[in-house]
Amino acid sequence: MRELTFFMPTRVVFGQDVVKKAGDGLALGRKALIVTGQTSARKSGALDDVLSVLTGDYVLFDRVENNPTGENCLEGAELAKKENCDYIIAIGGGSPLDAAKVMAVLAVNDKKPLELYGGWENQPLPIVAIPTTAGTGSEVTPYAVLTLHEEETKKGLGGPDLFPRVAYLDPKYTASLPRQVTIDTAVDALSHLVEGYLSNRATPASDFVALQGIAVWGATIPALRAGQFTMEDRENLLLASMLGGITIAQTGTTFVHALGYPLTYFHDYPHGRANGVFMASYLEYTNEHAPERVETVLELLDVPSLEAFRELMNELFADFVGKLHVGEERIRAYAEKAAQTRNVTYSRGTPTVDQLTKILKDNIL
Amino acid sequence: MRELTFFMPTRVVFGQDVVKKAGDGLALGRKALIVTGQTSARKSGALDDVLSVLTGDYVLFDRVENNPTGENCLEGAELAKKENCDYIIAIGGGSPLDAAKVMAVLAVNDKKPLELYGGWENQPLPIVAIPTTAGTGSEVTPYAVLTLHEEETKKGLGGPDLFPRVAYLDPKYTASLPRQVTIDTAVDALSHLVEGYLSNRATPASDFVALQGIAVWGATIPALRAGQFTMEDRENLLLASMLGGITIAQTGTTFVHALGYPLTYFHDYPHGRANGVFMASYLEYTNEHAPERVETVLELLDVPSLEAFRELMNELFADFVGKLHVGEERIRAYAEKAAQTRNVTYSRGTPTVDQLTKILKDNIL
Repeated sequence: MRELTFFMPTRVVFGQDVVKKAGDGLALGRKALIVTGQTSARKSGALDDVLSVLTGDYVLFDRVENNPTGENCLEGAELAKKENCDYIIAIGGGSPLDAAKVMAVLAVNDKKPLELYGGWENQPLPIVAIPTTAGTGSEVTPYAVLTLHEEETKKGLGGPDLFPRVAYLDPKYTASLPRQVTIDTAVDALSHLVEGYLSNRATPASDFVALQGIAVWGATIPALRAGQFTMEDRENLLLASMLGGITIAQTGTTFVHALGYPLTYFHDYPHGRANGVFMASYLEYTNEHAPERVETVLELLDVPSLEAFRELMNELFADFVGKLHVGEERIRAYAEKAAQTRNVTYSRGTPTVDQLTKILKDNIL
Repeated sequence: MRELTFFMPTRVVFGQDVVKKAGDGLALGRKALIVTGQTSARKSGALDDVLSVLTGDYVLFDRVENNPTGENCLEGAELAKKENCDYIIAIGGGSPLDAAKVMAVLAVNDKKPLELYGGWENQPLPIVAIPTTAGTGSEVTPYAVLTLHEEETKKGLGGPDLFPRVAYLDPKYTASLPRQVTIDTAVDALSHLVEGYLSNRATPASDFVALQGIAVWGATIPALRAGQFTMEDRENLLLASMLGGITIAQTGTTFVHALGYPLTYFHDYPHGRANGVFMASYLEYTNEHAPERVETVLELLDVPSLEAFRELMNELFADFVGKLHVGEERIRAYAEKAAQTRNVTYSRGTPTVDQLTKILKDNIL
């Protein structure tokens, strides 16, 4: 008998000018902590839209780092406490959205960031999430990923009360993204969809969502190749990104994410690109364990073969793939750390340290 | 640009023995009001399963009527208040599930049932929903339908806080349903899926869900025809019913429901059958306004034509269709009342009183 669970309590509002149309309804409380990075919230026009409709109080925290640390989140949480904010509006890519979730917890729980991996008691502040990239899907997930210098890696934390209360998605906010950022984040969305569909935690419910997302993403391949995006492409990518978020909210991610973290931590690879480097090997590996699922992915993407998929990834990351020169010892250490993650156990055929080492070597040595 | 909203905050847990597996996790508070009708909760085995895992306090309200009234719900709410219940476990078909939602509101808001159509202030008690039929989808909707003797009809009420907190769906609870009840409720599920897909409020998000549901429902047509159901058929019907609920939670229903209410109120037709009577005419009518959508429905059901769809409905309701002898004046009155519902405005091509009269005549005169 089929078994499935499904939980995604975020209210999704997707379309043109949805923030402006929300008007006063955007506010979830008396006073907002607006959480952003240093540029994208402004450049995308999203912050202006929010400020144009928000009639209540707010205070701005615009110092979220790329790949935020716990300390960075604590800073925002302290501001929320000091200013008596009772909800958060998070605007940006994955970093501000994830950081906002951690701030939402820290603002009402007397804990250090690292202690959050053991859970928390008080219900986090409610969050309005407004993505300005099409990749993270964080607006519809209960996850936040922190950079932990203590452990020299990135590590996800999660809890059912971390789903944003509402997500406003307007493709126009992604229109100003440069070509390579669009590609990097698009591949992040693809990795969520494909990892979710190929995960051993996939259910009929997550499959419904993932397969729709893979098909929508596939329609953007010509645009990704050309590096030119119409508003319809932007729309498809944002929709695919959201569907990817809903997917991994059910399934979690797999070893692609576990292998990608050191590329971001040690080699400054943007998150999506760090995943993209391993996507072809992931499909090849999983093809040994669930060939019919891999075939479905390729069909929906309208990519004729595993080789053609590898070529597509190589093309999208032409300036980067294969150009990391990491020593063998280092690679072994990355594989050993990855093998200890939960993500690896969610992968079909649960790869060993040796197998992970080979995949790392094949792609970054 | 596509516009879509999506909101379905209920946690869904679907599969074999999900109630037993939930164990203590079933409880959402200190003391439960268990809401059921007089037979199905017991006969299905669902009540036994709940009582076998519930370690906390509870009180049983097993007097939900078929097509419950506000007074009936008030009775349950009074019991919840008197017994200090802080959450509800609803077990049964649409009637207990809908009644439980109204009780959840009345237990914490000092209002008369009819006043609820104007809204309420306090957050209703949280609800665990356990369906024992595969049709209503109420376990994943924010709606409750009450019978209003004052207005001689049934009328839906809704609010975003009426979604059950958790829904446990186990196909085995539907295994003991008689053939005709299985068919009546299955057609209710189909009407939700098809009305949602053909509604002028359909969005890409509701379409994703509806199309999956229509395909899953279509796989059960041979079983519905034969009146014999394997556990896989039961599973498909329960899944389709849930997907129908998620669909109408986004779109609402259309004129089929508006026309069906008098058949239930005045002629004791079970809800699903009351919808089923008009389904063929609904597809024919909508075919004038959105032929490509109607074609998609027929394709997914693997039903070759509109005529074949009408034959299918006639076959499933062989003992009932066409045998109501309602006078012309009465029919006009039904059409006039239906024309005033919101459901009608959600229908493509918004039918007039004359058009509704014709559809009624064609099917029940």
